[in-house]
Amino acid sequence: MSVAKVVFQARQSIKQVEEGCDLAPKFDERGLITVVTTDADSGEVLMQGFMNNEALRLTIATGEAHYFSRSRQELWHKGATSGFVQQVIELLVDDDQDCIWLRVNVAGGASCHVGYRSCFYRRVPVGESFAKRQTEGSITLEWTDTKKVFDPQEVYGDAPNPTKL
Amino acid sequence: MSVAKVVFQARQSIKQVEEGCDLAPKFDERGLITVVTTDADSGEVLMQGFMNNEALRLTIATGEAHYFSRSRQELWHKGATSGFVQQVIELLVDDDQDCIWLRVNVAGGASCHVGYRSCFYRRVPVGESFAKRQTEGSITLEWTDTKKVFDPQEVYGDAPNPTKL
Repeated sequence: MSVAKVVFQARQSIKQVEEGCDLAPKFDERGLITVVTTDADSGEVLMQGFMNNEALRLTIATGEAHYFSRSRQELWHKGATSGFVQQVIELLVDDDQDCIWLRVNVAGGASCHVGYRSCFYRRVPVGESFAKRQTEGSITLEWTDTKKVFDPQEVYGDAPNPTKL
Repeated sequence: MSVAKVVFQARQSIKQVEEGCDLAPKFDERGLITVVTTDADSGEVLMQGFMNNEALRLTIATGEAHYFSRSRQELWHKGATSGFVQQVIELLVDDDQDCIWLRVNVAGGASCHVGYRSCFYRRVPVGESFAKRQTEGSITLEWTDTKKVFDPQEVYGDAPNPTKL
């Protein structure tokens, strides 16, 4: 399917954007739109990333998730290095069309560069749990997943870590 | 629970941020961190928003979702106007700690200012569905939810619409 056939509409009115059938995505001042990616079966949030215009058009045309890597400043076909391609089961857009929700199938693979299945493997205690568990001035993250799906060193070698301090 | 007791750690190393037990969130150049909010029962993505430092600390201390409204440029206790407060069941942080995942309970209410349960009520055809359904140059969004939970005019009156073109 040619990516050239994916055409976005201009944003003309709030009614069009919120309650119409046009796809008129809003890219921010960096040219990016926020993407939330969940596992199509479990509903688990796997990762949050960004797409530029080209990445969104490629995702729609191919049915495989493409992102824009902020750390590398380049188009990123997810899984090109690790092999864990994300098959898009459903792509939804939010009310003001500045966020994309991808429901994907990773076929047992991982979506996190640290090696876990999901990027969200640590929990912050909140409310009563926070009050009960914490001593003043400290928050201790609780692990929700401790089993890595792959070894990042084997998969990525000496490629720069995308995490920025 | 006093919000003053919620203290974040400085970001010192990639190992600390990715594989440690410190909560050391990364706020961007606007002072914001991305938030993904899902229904704790169904897994459905309800909305995507942002928190500043204060909103994240209030959410942890109270167990109710607080955001930072970019359109109003102010702290936003979700549900203060509509009554649809989000009770936080679980709060997770991602690998590089620049994104928060909230699993919430809205007790039958809605999280979308347009009146729908979720902000994501329209689907974009992708891959084979895109190829089959579309004529060249057009994308038609498909509705996944058509039943509004509330009437925005009744709830918000003449308040400015947060959607920007």
